[in-house]
Amino acid sequence: MTENPTAITFQPIGFVHSPFAQRERNMPRQPCDAAALPAELRILPEFREGLADLDGFDRLWVISYFHQSRPAGLHVHPPIDDQERGVFATRSPDRPNPIGISSAKVVSVDHTSGIIRIERTELVDGTPILDIKPYIPESDAFPDSAAGWHDLARQRSKESPR
Amino acid sequence: MTENPTAITFQPIGFVHSPFAQRERNMPRQPCDAAALPAELRILPEFREGLADLDGFDRLWVISYFHQSRPAGLHVHPPIDDQERGVFATRSPDRPNPIGISSAKVVSVDHTSGIIRIERTELVDGTPILDIKPYIPESDAFPDSAAGWHDLARQRSKESPR
Repeated sequence: MTENPTAITFQPIGFVHSPFAQRERNMPRQPCDAAALPAELRILPEFREGLADLDGFDRLWVISYFHQSRPAGLHVHPPIDDQERGVFATRSPDRPNPIGISSAKVVSVDHTSGIIRIERTELVDGTPILDIKPYIPESDAFPDSAAGWHDLARQRSKESPR
Repeated sequence: MTENPTAITFQPIGFVHSPFAQRERNMPRQPCDAAALPAELRILPEFREGLADLDGFDRLWVISYFHQSRPAGLHVHPPIDDQERGVFATRSPDRPNPIGISSAKVVSVDHTSGIIRIERTELVDGTPILDIKPYIPESDAFPDSAAGWHDLARQRSKESPR
């Protein structure tokens, strides 16, 4: 048993194919951003069988590796806020372990090619995919959950839109 | 740029301290399971500053490494279902990259000790934590999202509870 592993290693199960060539060029910072665009999740041949039974799920979680992330400090300045915040209170891609979780709306699952089309994403082209999970409202959906500084920043932007 | 990295390595930012000593002993399989119990997320000293501003969030995501997972096939038998399903259509801990995502209700955040108390978890004691993210309903909450085979299995268990 590895009680205190110092290094945990994963291998990509596939890659994102998206219109965002680079992080800096028009890349939205939140999955809900209006600039998010359709994309494909291309799953490698040896993992495609694992996509069975994904049909019937409206959404899935894309667990990804932010391969263009920069070395992370413990405070980051979220684009929607006016000050720095602790990195674990943000969804910044620049974080100690640059892992992303994005809820994506499924358009289609092609079991032969291993291509999952999703409605919109903020992920850049070539992003390694570490895992795909089904979105299950019972475990994942808490619409009334308070969201600290994020709620305040959203409120401010509604009161004085830029 | 690492377009096609073969190995992606992370280090734990902390560990789960929970009443579940082992996976096999009474471990619930879903965060919503009635058997889930309170637990602590113990963040290592060098990462504690990153917990700033987590206060005010009702929930957070615990991104974890299922360190007791078994070698994964591409089909698994979910405990709530009567047949095998593609692994990426399940939340099984036995998967190609054994990464977990759990939405946890926050009880308290102690910035000095780095201890986050959470209301209930299904994670076993000693589980390495890879990341903590805020739960933001705007990006994360889709209560009406259809959940394929999971919806059917839940429906069946309501009709004929064991």
